[in-house]
Parts: sequence; structure tokens; C-alpha cells
Amino acid sequence: MSESLTVAILGATGAVGTRMIDQLEASAISVKKVKLLASARSAGEIRQFRGENVVVEETTPESFEGVDIVLSSAGGSVSKKFLPEAVKRGAVCVDNTSAFRMDPDVPLVIPEVNEQAMYKHHGIIANPNCSTIQMVVALAPIYQAYGLKQVIVSTYQAASGAGQSAWKELDAEAQAHLDGDKMDAQILPTKGEKKHYPLAFNLLPQIDVFEDDGYTHEEWKMIHETKKIMLDDMDAGDIKVTATCVRVPVAVGHGESVYFEVADQSATAKDIQAKLAAAPGVVLQDDPDHQIYPQPLLAEGKRDTFVGRVRPDLENAGAFNMWVVSDNLLKGAAWNAVQIAERLVADDLVRVPENSQL
Amino acid sequence: MSESLTVAILGATGAVGTRMIDQLEASAISVKKVKLLASARSAGEIRQFRGENVVVEETTPESFEGVDIVLSSAGGSVSKKFLPEAVKRGAVCVDNTSAFRMDPDVPLVIPEVNEQAMYKHHGIIANPNCSTIQMVVALAPIYQAYGLKQVIVSTYQAASGAGQSAWKELDAEAQAHLDGDKMDAQILPTKGEKKHYPLAFNLLPQIDVFEDDGYTHEEWKMIHETKKIMLDDMDAGDIKVTATCVRVPVAVGHGESVYFEVADQSATAKDIQAKLAAAPGVVLQDDPDHQIYPQPLLAEGKRDTFVGRVRPDLENAGAFNMWVVSDNLLKGAAWNAVQIAERLVADDLVRVPENSQL
Repeated sequence: MSESLTVAILGATGAVGTRMIDQLEASAISVKKVKLLASARSAGEIRQFRGENVVVEETTPESFEGVDIVLSSAGGSVSKKFLPEAVKRGAVCVDNTSAFRMDPDVPLVIPEVNEQAMYKHHGIIANPNCSTIQMVVALAPIYQAYGLKQVIVSTYQAASGAGQSAWKELDAEAQAHLDGDKMDAQILPTKGEKKHYPLAFNLLPQIDVFEDDGYTHEEWKMIHETKKIMLDDMDAGDIKVTATCVRVPVAVGHGESVYFEVADQSATAKDIQAKLAAAPGVVLQDDPDHQIYPQPLLAEGKRDTFVGRVRPDLENAGAFNMWVVSDNLLKGAAWNAVQIAERLVADDLVRVPENSQL
Repeated sequence: MSESLTVAILGATGAVGTRMIDQLEASAISVKKVKLLASARSAGEIRQFRGENVVVEETTPESFEGVDIVLSSAGGSVSKKFLPEAVKRGAVCVDNTSAFRMDPDVPLVIPEVNEQAMYKHHGIIANPNCSTIQMVVALAPIYQAYGLKQVIVSTYQAASGAGQSAWKELDAEAQAHLDGDKMDAQILPTKGEKKHYPLAFNLLPQIDVFEDDGYTHEEWKMIHETKKIMLDDMDAGDIKVTATCVRVPVAVGHGESVYFEVADQSATAKDIQAKLAAAPGVVLQDDPDHQIYPQPLLAEGKRDTFVGRVRPDLENAGAFNMWVVSDNLLKGAAWNAVQIAERLVADDLVRVPENSQL
């Protein structure tokens, strides 16, 4: 399919949506028309696409008539409501929310890792959670070469992962704190929760709501999405995964301290660095002698996942520590979604199979 | 020894030194006289102790004449130069630098954990590193009850751990960033290193210099100090420890994501929470239903170590995650040092053994 396409961006005015516009502009996709969809509140706003003004429209089921590809990032309930309507009208949807990620009929895709999962799509392809994507981009080449027995991750997640309003709140709190004023928290740790705490100059060990087992839903996502992506399409038994997710006063760019045990204990840190350096989507930044290691401020605006500080656990053979950073709004969201769309176009997959039920 | 004592604070104008003055004021120690010592640059400055002005003096070997207790926090080279001079003059020194920590003749003490190690001091007792102290305060009751096989820690360390100048730099950088100006980094990640990076709205996975094995010296400290403190005075074989230390844009209060495996696999998260709740110096803040968990902003100015988010690894029996926060300048430094001094006084240990060689 090489003709020009109509692409709709659902949630076009959000932190991820605005970056979806940028990433689509810079992509290889031949776009005939872009539709920018949002809630009634944002309808009428003007955005630019390739130099032309585009008016933001309120989303209705009819918005998807004639649309080939939907890029969706307006929240899980919006995706649940509208994506089946889009699929019904023949559009293929790349969904950045958690609405369909664990649905067995929905591929959960990181193109560098499991592009082949897209081939069996039924109209919706899910984009994994931001913190999952960058970890799995870094772990996949290690897993493919040496197998993985266990992963223990602690995250350092940026405010923008909770949306534009959380990012603005961080800036306002930081300014208030520097001025000696009280910080006013209304959004974080999680919109809709009973209690809110300041993030500026603080750490919040809660991202999303708590499950009954004491893990947050963000931690649950990292555990289960990682397995769905890596185990679905590779073949090396089970991987144990546990996670602690922490929000940190950073605007853009998640950090992750990842401890992992490989199955093949002959692997050295040098071997792993070589596999990472050769892996698609990974940039190895690992030179302690010259103080080279990944940092959020250096990753902002980049599409890659940056990995450094790869070193063996000195007392546990076959285990390693590494440090992973990526722009959570790009590889963690907008770029991964547009990248999926690029591959859908290249592989002639922009069509909804007949009798698709979702 | 219940008579009034002369206490010298070495490095009295630094971030930790100023808190040593506060903690000493609030302590049970009967202080006859306080001597505030610093470099020539700070000599002549005025500080308050229990309502009276005290002039900061330049440190010389003679400064320690007539001093009973020295609390030192002026850097490793200053401790190496002056503490033997103080001991020679009969003073017992509590040293907050890394100068003597791994010396087999120097007890490395957290009073809640291994107070008994103080009994064999030769004039110097070392205060562990800030990140080590809070982790070991939380792990010790677990270790005593269930044994420990392995500890994997990722730290979230505040700027003030690198001193007052790093803390000021964080504030200046944050203001510059909010104003849209370039951030000017001169201190972090580590004073004296070749390259400096901004910390505001960023993460720096380097604390202290790099060792040849790829670990930073901060990580080395966490590994080796933890073993010296816990294994010296308890008896349950070896503990494997690995660490990743990251500086985060927080002013005061370190966070730690601690993964640990106990030897006694019958232990449940509830058992561990009960041991933590009963442990000296620990406050359990662990109620996900009410969003109760430790946060640096809530720990600032407190002497305790706060622990929450205790939960089992869902796939690895006997392993758990927890989240630990403490004021790095208090329990991590000034309070632990003054607490050691209090115990030295209470246990009649404020005397240098004859023929002490250090």
C-alpha cells in the first residue's frame, strides 16, 4: 500500500498527541490528510501539520469515516469507546493507552523487538507502556543472545508520563518551592486518586493506582507487558519480572535501574555491551572513564533508547546491572506508535481483516 | 562519665556540620563547651550554640587540646590529617567521612544495629555512608529475624549528600531552567571530576568516582560497609550485595528501592512489616489503601528511617521489595554521629585506650 493515507490523531492536544503530530510529520508515511481529534473542550484549536493549519475536531464515531490509520493517546476510556468505531469503519488503530494491551487478540508491539506480532492484528495494535518499552528495547538483544531468568527493575519516571498537566504542575511546584511558597499538588501521584502530593524536590513511589497485592498498576504493567512482548514471539521459557516504579522530579525522560540474570552464564559485560551496541533502537553510552552514561536531559527529543553502566554483579555469576534512559514521550509513546504505523504501511498491513471482532 | 564535656565539631559550617550543632543542642549530652572548627576560609564566622555565640576557629592540631569528643565532617583528607592529632590529645572522634571506615581497627557503627562494635574503639568510630545507614537500619531487623541471602539496591540520592554547594547548585539550576536559561553545572556529579552535568530536572547515575570494575565508589561503599556493619557483629554467613547509586533532583532525603532475599522462606510481607514496625529508628509507613508511603519531603528534619511498600516478589519465593527514605543529613550523617556520641557517653567510652595507634 503506497498511496497517500488519511491519518487521525486521537488526543491530538495532549503531551503525547502533539509529539505524534511531530513524529508523523518526520515519518516516511505518505499522508494525504491528517485529522486532529480531541474532546469538545479542545475542539476549534488550531495546530500545524507540514506547514498547514489544521482545526482540532471533537471526536465522534463519524470522525473515523475514510480514515486509514488512527494514532490514539486520549486515555483508556476514550480508546475503549472510539477505537471499535474506527475499526468498524475500516481504520487500523495504534493505541497508546492501556485499554487493549492485554487483550489476547491485540498485538502489543515494539517494532525492534516483535514486529512479527503485527501480522495477526484485528484492527488494533497496542503500544506498550512507556516504562516497559525502553526496558524491553534494552533487554531484547540480551534475551535473544543469552536468555533471561530474572529481571528486577526500579524506575525513575518523569512527570510528563502523567500528561501535560502533571508536567506543568511540576514546574509550578518547583517555582513555588524556590520562592519559599507552599506547593499545591492537584494531579500527582495519579489523577483521580484521593490524595495528591508534590513531586518537586520529592519522590513519589506510586504511579497509577494500587492493586490488591501491593503493587501499583504501573508495576503490574511492567511485569505483564514485558512477558507478553518477549515471550509471545521468542522461545526460551519463562522470565521472572518484578518492578518498583517511582515518579521523580524530571520533566521528560525516564531512567531505569535494571538488574537481570541471564541463562547463559558465559556472557560477560563486554559481550552484553556488544549486543546492545549492535541492537536496533539502542545507543550504548557506557564509558565510565570519560563519565559517559545516559541522562534524561541528553535523551530528550531523541528516538533512541540509551543504555550504560553495564556491569556484572560482583557476587552473583550471570547477573548484571545496567542503566536505561529514553524520552518517554517519543520511544515511550509517540515515536513507537508512529514507528508501528510506518511498519504497517511498509508491510501492507493497513487493512482490517473481514469479520474482525473487538 | 557524667561530667560536662567539651565537644569539637570539625567542618562546623557545612551542610552536615550545621546539623551536628543542632543535633548536639537537642541531645542528652551535657556539653560544657563547644568548639566549632573549620578551614581558614570560614574562621571568624559566628554560629549559635544553645543561645550563645560561638566563633568558628581555624583547625590546627592544638585545637583538640582539652577536647573530649570530636564530631568530624570536613572531608576525608581533613579527617586523615587531624583526627590522629585529636586522638593523640585524648579526644574520641566520631568521623562522618570515609577516611577510616574500612580500617579493621575502626568500628563502623549504626547504634540501632551494632552499638556493641563501639566497645573496641581505639579513639575513632566511623559513621557509615548516608545511603548505607538508612538501608542497614531497615535491613537489620529483617536480617536478625530471617537472615539475608542477597540485597539489590537502587538509590535515589538528594543533592545535599554532596554538600551545601551541590544543594545550592541544584536550586540555581532549577531556577535557570524554569526561566528558560542555560544551567551552569560546576559541582555535580562529583567535586573535582573532569565533567559536570546539571542535576535539575535530570538524573545522574554517578555518585563519587568510578572504580576499575565499573562501580562508583558510592556503590562500593554500600556493598562493603553493609557487610562490615551487619556481618561483623551478627552471625549468619555471607550476604550478597549489589548497588546502583543515582543522584536525583531532590534537596534533602534519600530514597532507596531495596530488593532482598531472606534465608527463612517462611517469612511473609506481614512478618517483615511487623519486625520493621518494632525496630528501633524505623517508622513503618506502609498503607497503600490510604496512599501512605515514605517521601523525602515528609522525612526532612526527622531522625527516623521510613519504610514502606513492603511486598513479596510474586514469582521468587523468599524475595521482597521495599522503599526506604531518610533525611540523609540527619540519620545519614549528623544524627547518627551525635547518637554514637550519646551512646559513648552513656556507656562510659569517652576515653582513648592507652597506646592507641591509628
